[in-house]
Amino acid sequence: MNGAPGFDAAFAATALDRLRARVPRVHCLTNAVAQSFTANVLLALGAIPSMTIAPEEVPAFTAGADALLVNLGTLDDTRRRAIPLALDVAAAAGKPWVLDPVFVDRSPVRCDLARDLLARSPTLLRVNAAELAALTGGREARAAGRVLAARIALTGAVDEVSDGRRSLRLDNGHPLMGKVTATGCAGGAVLAAFLAVEPDPLLAAAAGLAVFGIAGEIAGAQARGPGSFVPAFLDALHALDAEIIAARLRAG
Amino acid sequence: MNGAPGFDAAFAATALDRLRARVPRVHCLTNAVAQSFTANVLLALGAIPSMTIAPEEVPAFTAGADALLVNLGTLDDTRRRAIPLALDVAAAAGKPWVLDPVFVDRSPVRCDLARDLLARSPTLLRVNAAELAALTGGREARAAGRVLAARIALTGAVDEVSDGRRSLRLDNGHPLMGKVTATGCAGGAVLAAFLAVEPDPLLAAAAGLAVFGIAGEIAGAQARGPGSFVPAFLDALHALDAEIIAARLRAG
Amino acid sequence: MNGAPGFDAAFAATALDRLRARVPRVHCLTNAVAQSFTANVLLALGAIPSMTIAPEEVPAFTAGADALLVNLGTLDDTRRRAIPLALDVAAAAGKPWVLDPVFVDRSPVRCDLARDLLARSPTLLRVNAAELAALTGGREARAAGRVLAARIALTGAVDEVSDGRRSLRLDNGHPLMGKVTATGCAGGAVLAAFLAVEPDPLLAAAAGLAVFGIAGEIAGAQARGPGSFVPAFLDALHALDAEIIAARLRAG
Repeated sequence: MNGAPGFDAAFAATALDRLRARVPRVHCLTNAVAQSFTANVLLALGAIPSMTIAPEEVPAFTAGADALLVNLGTLDDTRRRAIPLALDVAAAAGKPWVLDPVFVDRSPVRCDLARDLLARSPTLLRVNAAELAALTGGREARAAGRVLAARIALTGAVDEVSDGRRSLRLDNGHPLMGKVTATGCAGGAVLAAFLAVEPDPLLAAAAGLAVFGIAGEIAGAQARGPGSFVPAFLDALHALDAEIIAARLRAG
Repeated sequence: MNGAPGFDAAFAATALDRLRARVPRVHCLTNAVAQSFTANVLLALGAIPSMTIAPEEVPAFTAGADALLVNLGTLDDTRRRAIPLALDVAAAAGKPWVLDPVFVDRSPVRCDLARDLLARSPTLLRVNAAELAALTGGREARAAGRVLAARIALTGAVDEVSDGRRSLRLDNGHPLMGKVTATGCAGGAVLAAFLAVEPDPLLAAAAGLAVFGIAGEIAGAQARGPGSFVPAFLDALHALDAEIIAARLRAG
Repeated sequence: MNGAPGFDAAFAATALDRLRARVPRVHCLTNAVAQSFTANVLLALGAIPSMTIAPEEVPAFTAGADALLVNLGTLDDTRRRAIPLALDVAAAAGKPWVLDPVFVDRSPVRCDLARDLLARSPTLLRVNAAELAALTGGREARAAGRVLAARIALTGAVDEVSDGRRSLRLDNGHPLMGKVTATGCAGGAVLAAFLAVEPDPLLAAAAGLAVFGIAGEIAGAQARGPGSFVPAFLDALHALDAEIIAARLRAG
């Protein structure tokens, strides 16, 4: 592992400050289950979400956004038509975008689409191990990054970010995050929000995963179960500051 | 400002009592992000929500409802087809309806549709300042009401209701309401519920905004952030009574 | 009433243990309002939800699932096309499925579809009294079960399960469950999860209703209203064990 020079708690805190100062707009083409929680996560973080998937509206919303999330959950016709329209606008304007190919391991049509979208060079690919295996045939994150020519945020018990050259592990989080639907999907939107304020995708991904994981572990320590985790998580995300990040970040 | 004779805390409390006694059905054509929270807000208030947007079903649900909400968020084909069907039923039966043209300032197609729907004379138009500016070219609420020939509930740090003749400011609420997705959208559904039990649209709007804002400020005082705000808000709405309204209402 | 030999608190607790050990996948074709809460209920219970309604994806997700939920809320074209595709896969593989014909009393097209789906022999039909009346002309649960040739879970202040031969009443729950949207819908998903681990549909339904109702009454006792009910309910479901079930089950 080469590490990622320049990433530490102070960097993550500064990136969060920049995000809150700029209040980036993040347009989310995401699944039906995740829409509401994702919007609340972005608001708690300090960004402005928009969520329409209507093909007639997606170009205008993408044009007005600072970053784009393309999440492949609940992939119906409307979403399928909206995605290339949003990507055309994002590509023309040089806007960063995150691809989150959820459950590609469960749906062959979704996996095919994910491969096509990878060819459009997402600024960041967010995957878990099962999804990465479905896309690449099981290579570990750094090798997969080379094969896919993509920057990867691989989430799991320990998160890993890699751009094929640099890589970094992030070890914050809490098991209850896996007991709440759409936490991973909302995490993808957080990565997009950080891409809007940090031009280096690897550093943006590391900051986003750090902030997300730290809020998760604070909430996990307070919660009595997956129900009370949700409000505690949004509160923690909203209250996060440099001191908390410095005390809790585990990265290397 | 002319004020709105007849509106005070006692009126708002009585309107809420009538609502809880009648348990009105409110059919909501609303956006995907807001559906669940809106339904929970209506239930906590004392109304019965229905939320289908399927064109085949919308006429029967509208016919069985006491009021209708038309919210333009996430405006896909299905919603686009459902709206006129619902309005035909509502117009034929004289049912009150609220138009909430969310984000018309972000989407030209949505703004065009909103102007068409204004021509169908909503009982109440719910907007924020940016949306009103997109619709009217920036007139303030009372003048805009005259131009649009509409009763307007203009929401913001201070809410304002106007029917072009009478107007009223309502100064309850809490900044955390802006940090939770779909609070404004759910507020539109609350206005529809009050229109079902109060024939004067301006007084119904004032009562709805008062109840919503007071629940928001109670929740805001209890919450530790936007996450714990949501359960506290629904609890406060459910527990609201004449005494609380009298102690907290700021209107004039 | 014949009762249901073999059902008691120890049986319900053992069924829950089996569910948590097996971690069944439950594919949910459910309404837009219920998707997120249903997914969280399944996760808190110990199952894995998937929620896509896209016809292209539904066969693969159903094939990979251990049980299926078909909920007729917000019945748009996409859901209408997805349902028979999922049922074909479920029938071919002998997978259990639950039919939840929500609001058939409000929508004639939905009632017609529900009757067609009943002809495909759901493993379990979940209804409330108004929905059952719309489907059967008002027969009580056991008689309706004979007429419909279906196993029925009839939910209300007191729940009843029947297969036309055996029947059982379950008297857990809390009034706040009726003040939170999609609790009934999420309950249907819980029944599907128990069908994945218990081959006798009546016993599976009884266990599911018992677990759901007990979690509801624990949450109801802790909550200050419908808002705080939701996190408390998910926490209670997640924490449920044999001792709690034995102390609280009211069935007979």
